[in-house]
Amino acid sequence: MDTTIIYGKNAIIEALEQGEREFNKILISDGARSDVKTEQIKKLAKQKGVIFQFVTKDKLNSIEPSGKHQGVIGLVASVKYVDLNEFISKHKNETTGVVILDGVEDAHNVGAIIRSCLCAGIKGIILPSRRSALINSTVEKTSAGAINHIDIIKTNSLVSAVQKLKESDYWVIASDHHAEQNHYEIDYTDMNFALIMGAEHAGISKSLLKLSDFKVKIPMLTNFNSLNVSNATAIILFEYVSQLSKKTKRK
Amino acid sequence: MDTTIIYGKNAIIEALEQGEREFNKILISDGARSDVKTEQIKKLAKQKGVIFQFVTKDKLNSIEPSGKHQGVIGLVASVKYVDLNEFISKHKNETTGVVILDGVEDAHNVGAIIRSCLCAGIKGIILPSRRSALINSTVEKTSAGAINHIDIIKTNSLVSAVQKLKESDYWVIASDHHAEQNHYEIDYTDMNFALIMGAEHAGISKSLLKLSDFKVKIPMLTNFNSLNVSNATAIILFEYVSQLSKKTKRK
Repeated sequence: MDTTIIYGKNAIIEALEQGEREFNKILISDGARSDVKTEQIKKLAKQKGVIFQFVTKDKLNSIEPSGKHQGVIGLVASVKYVDLNEFISKHKNETTGVVILDGVEDAHNVGAIIRSCLCAGIKGIILPSRRSALINSTVEKTSAGAINHIDIIKTNSLVSAVQKLKESDYWVIASDHHAEQNHYEIDYTDMNFALIMGAEHAGISKSLLKLSDFKVKIPMLTNFNSLNVSNATAIILFEYVSQLSKKTKRK
Repeated sequence: MDTTIIYGKNAIIEALEQGEREFNKILISDGARSDVKTEQIKKLAKQKGVIFQFVTKDKLNSIEPSGKHQGVIGLVASVKYVDLNEFISKHKNETTGVVILDGVEDAHNVGAIIRSCLCAGIKGIILPSRRSALINSTVEKTSAGAINHIDIIKTNSLVSAVQKLKESDYWVIASDHHAEQNHYEIDYTDMNFALIMGAEHAGISKSLLKLSDFKVKIPMLTNFNSLNVSNATAIILFEYVSQLSKKTKRK
């Protein structure tokens, strides 16, 4: 079985509470100062029937060499990926948003995007099997546990995935800084949408741009035309949240 | 003199072109494949009278141990900080936005925030001398060179800085997830504003919250109430940009 590690006390607490990740074991540094969060982890582990084990700090460092483990590492089964067909049929009776990452490779960005997606009520994230960050422990930690609450869909072909979404009544929106339309000029609230975000330099691949129903840009106030991709994603998604929130208030 | 390093070819090109950072020297790996960007760096260095020197890759690794230097490292004088009084008087004849970071310690976040600030037309960033990320090479790289285009103001007391801004006709806006008002319910376009962002867990200190004229929250669509601070900053700043952009269109 594939195993991945979770580190960071908050991420481990989140994963234990949520219960969707299958823990093999939790390793705790025997030299670690026992604090409230470590105690909480031990308590949760007991409740959930997860084994924990005291090991040397060197052992933890050998598993997570950056030393950012804060004295606790969880060994879990790798993220369970969801099939796109399954995802679509699960959500067919509600308006649904998904985010597609085309070549976003930095694990910190992927983690922050997952986190923003969850906060914005996005139901799924589609990643290509190649050319994007694997869901590793950095992604897990940067997502602050958000990864346990959102469907991750991996696909061999983003083009096929986008075609399938279009057939299933999703509107496809591409973030493209050459676009004429501003991101806030679209009404996101009454449709199923799939928002495609590209890598910071390469942008979105041409085949995906061609399939898009809308192309939107984020207007800038300087010529320094370069937002971090996770920030750009958050800006567009929270325009959608603002629209929805204003609409709900009017009702 | 304080020296700091810049790495990443784009960040070095940006700093050379912009010309506001004082380069001591550029180190290039003698084993590096010579590509377009490295050639551009050499050309720019010659134009600007900056010495470059070929060194071993081991030498570069000893300066920048993460190995992310891409074969080129610039040694530059540390960022020149701007005095708050100087900043205020420089901008007294225009409406101006500044961002205040209260305890944001992660260098990746600080770098991404600087980048978003520049794109959103923010003129300055105020950091406390203690308790925030120093402007180091990670910040520089994450900012993608944006740091060369925006005033960085360091202060021993954020409270004094906020008081001074208030006396100088700035409205103070605190991002606080306990706030009642949504971030999009404020008109940012007709005032000088200072937006305070706090650390992800601790939030903004009470003394600063007390001084705020507005407290705003970003509404969320799930209970997972936790955005990355650089994403939260981008969301609020680009609400301001959207407002400005809509207003300009109407005229």
